[in-house]
Amino acid sequence: MHKEKLEAIGEKELINRLGKFMPKNQISDDCALINIKNENLLVNTDSLVENVHFNAMTICPGDLGWKAVVSNISDLLSSGSKKTIGITISLVLPAKTEWIWVEELYKGINKALKEYGGVILGGDCSKGDAKIISITAFGIQGELELRRNACKPGDIILTTGIHGLSKLGFLIQNKINFYNEFSLNERLIIKSIEHFCRPRVYPNFLNNLLKTRSNKNIKRIGCTDSSDGLFQALQDLAIASNCKAILSYEKLPKDKDWPRGDKWDEYYFFGGEDYELVFSLPEIWAKDLSKLDNDINEIGFFADGEPSIEFKDNKKNKLFNNRPFKHF
Amino acid sequence: MHKEKLEAIGEKELINRLGKFMPKNQISDDCALINIKNENLLVNTDSLVENVHFNAMTICPGDLGWKAVVSNISDLLSSGSKKTIGITISLVLPAKTEWIWVEELYKGINKALKEYGGVILGGDCSKGDAKIISITAFGIQGELELRRNACKPGDIILTTGIHGLSKLGFLIQNKINFYNEFSLNERLIIKSIEHFCRPRVYPNFLNNLLKTRSNKNIKRIGCTDSSDGLFQALQDLAIASNCKAILSYEKLPKDKDWPRGDKWDEYYFFGGEDYELVFSLPEIWAKDLSKLDNDINEIGFFADGEPSIEFKDNKKNKLFNNRPFKHF
Repeated sequence: MHKEKLEAIGEKELINRLGKFMPKNQISDDCALINIKNENLLVNTDSLVENVHFNAMTICPGDLGWKAVVSNISDLLSSGSKKTIGITISLVLPAKTEWIWVEELYKGINKALKEYGGVILGGDCSKGDAKIISITAFGIQGELELRRNACKPGDIILTTGIHGLSKLGFLIQNKINFYNEFSLNERLIIKSIEHFCRPRVYPNFLNNLLKTRSNKNIKRIGCTDSSDGLFQALQDLAIASNCKAILSYEKLPKDKDWPRGDKWDEYYFFGGEDYELVFSLPEIWAKDLSKLDNDINEIGFFADGEPSIEFKDNKKNKLFNNRPFKHF
Repeated sequence: MHKEKLEAIGEKELINRLGKFMPKNQISDDCALINIKNENLLVNTDSLVENVHFNAMTICPGDLGWKAVVSNISDLLSSGSKKTIGITISLVLPAKTEWIWVEELYKGINKALKEYGGVILGGDCSKGDAKIISITAFGIQGELELRRNACKPGDIILTTGIHGLSKLGFLIQNKINFYNEFSLNERLIIKSIEHFCRPRVYPNFLNNLLKTRSNKNIKRIGCTDSSDGLFQALQDLAIASNCKAILSYEKLPKDKDWPRGDKWDEYYFFGGEDYELVFSLPEIWAKDLSKLDNDINEIGFFADGEPSIEFKDNKKNKLFNNRPFKHF
């Protein structure tokens, strides 16, 4: 058993095994938690590896810096961060890297920090064969704890924004011949590249949640982000909260020009890197929030049952025979 | 200018340029600082890159895990951390990596945390071509701020432990034919490998500093660690504090079997990865501390003058024509 390779183990099982080295009271979620004098600090680290997560053809250094920050802030927001304090940056760069590449990366980083708050707190830099940008972001836990394990049967499932666009942008940037019997219109192409290269997050999300909360006793909300795709986000919520997600296919918010077809549904569910929030709320709260914020839509509900994801319309379930993005 | 490569810029200038993206009030030191409700959190990130900082021949995964933690805790201690809260771990691993390698790494990590305090707070894992272990460590700032820029002319320069052993251990592990006209004794060989593979730090350092402080008005002490070698540590202190280090060659603490000769002096000053503390104190404090703690020795003093390092004995100064370890 010990000789097994990571590629045979898979990412989920690997994370599961590594969790056994962590103390039991530590949350196994999007972020780590540090308590200091009753203030809770949220901490998140994400690494972007050249030729795994990005390459020179798909994204320019300025956009890469922006995206590296945004992917971290997305994790903070999906845990209920009320303020981003800042980030530390750990770079691995080949000696042949040009200074302008590093400068553009940092400009992109600071552009994102200017937009969403926080400063560069420190960092280090090492030589290596491939470029790696590893960012650790720090936020302050707000009064609502957003956690993967806080969904409840009966909760409405909601999502911000639209899924699949980033994947389409990735395919376009890589000039990969995506399944296309339609000619995509110019607007959708531009929007998709924008979503892939310069994803955005929702800093007002927590405030809008608090504004529409009628029952002040609810302190915990089931939530994660769709950085690994909508399917993976739903699966993480269902497993951590031990309940079953039931989706309404017709309610899924899509771009108005998003083509129909199985391949396009696959991009939608398994694409990843959209950094949308996927979460669940009691029914009244869900109605009030989606009325307040047009970017938020109901897509289904949680029910009692084994952790799983299915459609109300049984015919759609063949979609989920596909597997989500794997890191290994 | 923009087309220049990092290898032409050098590490120090690169860090200098990157510092311009940070806010002015942020310390540019061994650690980053986060203030939460008047409690200061120290944060440090260090990355170990395969074939740059380690390889399978020189160090086993258990020792690598230990060393990755210790190198981070060393930075926390050299900033005056009174307690290590924990670490987050960001791994990049090839898909062919065996699970036992990861398990041994984590065992080594937890062994170091058991010894020096702190827990694993979280982490993530990505696929990549070379192994990279990036650890972010969190500590609480104690009442004495240890900073690179707090040395003063007139201060005595002190160091914990002995330098150069880790470099010798590295050469032995790499089976590099080091300059050796002597036959090294078995004890020195074992000790050097131990220093390279399982370096130790000084968790009692801060307490001993506080015990021997007679003037309670002194809140800041010049300090760094020798992770990049004794010369680099002294240079960092001299530049940040804008003063001149004057060393007494005969006072340098060496292993009793450490051979004489220029090559061995070079290992001593430029070796690196010893994780000893290099710091400066007013004279009385320095005397009292080195009396209390036998691991601490005076090696010189700081004087007014351009940032530089020289020996009292002018003949020894040719040693410093050599350059310290560069990351690029």
